[in-house]
Amino acid sequence: MKKIMNDPGQIVEEMLQGLVKSYSEVVTRVADSRVVARAEMTPQVGLVSGGGSGHEPAHAGFVGDGMLSAAVLGDVFTSPTPDQIQTAIQTADQGQGVLLIVKNYTGDILNFEMAKELAEMEDIAVELVVVDDDIAVENSTYTAGKRGVAGTVLVHKILGDAARQGASLSELKALGESVVAATKTIGVALRAATVPEVGKPGFELAEDEVEFGVGIHGEPGYRREKMQTSHDLAVELVDKLLAAYEELPASIGVLVNGMGGTPLMEQLVFMNDVLDLLAEKDVNVTFHKVGNYMTSIDMQGLSLTFIALETAWQTALASKVTTISW
Amino acid sequence: MKKIMNDPGQIVEEMLQGLVKSYSEVVTRVADSRVVARAEMTPQVGLVSGGGSGHEPAHAGFVGDGMLSAAVLGDVFTSPTPDQIQTAIQTADQGQGVLLIVKNYTGDILNFEMAKELAEMEDIAVELVVVDDDIAVENSTYTAGKRGVAGTVLVHKILGDAARQGASLSELKALGESVVAATKTIGVALRAATVPEVGKPGFELAEDEVEFGVGIHGEPGYRREKMQTSHDLAVELVDKLLAAYEELPASIGVLVNGMGGTPLMEQLVFMNDVLDLLAEKDVNVTFHKVGNYMTSIDMQGLSLTFIALETAWQTALASKVTTISW
Repeated sequence: MKKIMNDPGQIVEEMLQGLVKSYSEVVTRVADSRVVARAEMTPQVGLVSGGGSGHEPAHAGFVGDGMLSAAVLGDVFTSPTPDQIQTAIQTADQGQGVLLIVKNYTGDILNFEMAKELAEMEDIAVELVVVDDDIAVENSTYTAGKRGVAGTVLVHKILGDAARQGASLSELKALGESVVAATKTIGVALRAATVPEVGKPGFELAEDEVEFGVGIHGEPGYRREKMQTSHDLAVELVDKLLAAYEELPASIGVLVNGMGGTPLMEQLVFMNDVLDLLAEKDVNVTFHKVGNYMTSIDMQGLSLTFIALETAWQTALASKVTTISW
Repeated sequence: MKKIMNDPGQIVEEMLQGLVKSYSEVVTRVADSRVVARAEMTPQVGLVSGGGSGHEPAHAGFVGDGMLSAAVLGDVFTSPTPDQIQTAIQTADQGQGVLLIVKNYTGDILNFEMAKELAEMEDIAVELVVVDDDIAVENSTYTAGKRGVAGTVLVHKILGDAARQGASLSELKALGESVVAATKTIGVALRAATVPEVGKPGFELAEDEVEFGVGIHGEPGYRREKMQTSHDLAVELVDKLLAAYEELPASIGVLVNGMGGTPLMEQLVFMNDVLDLLAEKDVNVTFHKVGNYMTSIDMQGLSLTFIALETAWQTALASKVTTISW
């Protein structure tokens, strides 16, 4: 394993320092914490997300006006602790309460729920939306139910726009649940991620193999096959995602998300195949995004997310933000 | 080699299609060409850049209001042809002439110069700025003199802002030459890129080796060593870059650029080390950027760029743009 780092045990701390030093006009670090908050808070319901590190730019890259109020960083692939999440809630609260956006992993749910209780004891109103967009498998290594993956970033964006426009805590919770229900993702891996403190890939794939449905921490997928063309990968993923909707959505958004080790060139080729397939099926695509948004360290692979879009959500996705990475 | 693609010979064509389908509100493809242009042109001097593909998001990701007017895409690591560049010039010209921003490679210089002559025969005023920011080596596999690398993106941004504000062609050429002179870059590679049509890495580095000064097409660097910490890599690169200035700049901008296969986490850790070293030396850093801007397909590694910043350039770097990838 070769990684550009110093002490693997300090990699999150040093990354966090590098981030806030580089983008101090956008974000600030809450003193002595693992919390990255907006440099300037505005009066609105606070939005907090976070989780294990290793998914950069998620989640700290999405802190800013029009998206998150604060993000809390755990160790690599490890949930942040309740006290750190509580600090994020305290920071994000501007008197109108705080919504937590949490990817569905057992450790995250436990710790965010506990932080919610701690904050409620301080009379901060807190609600929680669980993102479980990964349709690949039910239950997984770290999860009861479906996993939360790249679709989370679209939840941040749509809720972030609504919060900026003055939506209440209960409105945001309801909106969040609708957005999550409309969002479906599947991933595909060509090479596993290497966790810095582990030093070798989380699983082995042969030089001619691909695995469908792998999670963002290397959780097993649903099928391993010989490597195939971008077009054939797109057929598999597009069909699986469309089949997950009860009826064909009138308008969808498409996110192709690189896992960290996949060049943008390949992501764009894949997007081209996806859009051709959707055009053949007369699906109306009204939002597109391609790039590294919810990575798995240096995993080679990508995920495809569809979201059934209501008109207001299209506007929300298109609105301007001040984040580092949207 | 596993890559998400179809026919390696069609990878640039399919990438280009994926790009313009995804971002039609920002860019458009000039019919039957390899030219990506702004969806809407404004009356100003046109700015055209480009080169071989494989450096995504450069250069098409930097087309938009406030940066490039058009980008022309060659095959992977191959200069675009003069007729394609000529098409880009014709598209970018709004009656005030066109400035070409060209990375210093023999093939690019030859073809952009030839396109300039062709356009001048059509009475389009054309000037050319050559970017040669890579201080690692003099002369290289594809280059006489120094290579043009990630600093090119800063040239696009500063000239793009000036062009938008109405600078003339001759003013832009002079400004471009000043910006290039102020911009210095060195790269470091942990693993070579794999060109899709070749199918294996361009050179071999042992599992514990790192090479200083590698170019963005895998051109040889200046020293190969055992892998070392991010801090030690930063010491080497920072010292080399600062030594390349006749005197310590009063204000500098710092760009940490991922080569395509390097996670953002590692880039941020490296940036943290760079900023700590610069703080120790009392260097005033007034612009920061970290991410994949000028990649080398899936190369593992990064480059560090310093630019000695005049006050007006700081403003230019901070101005809003509508590009896909800045």
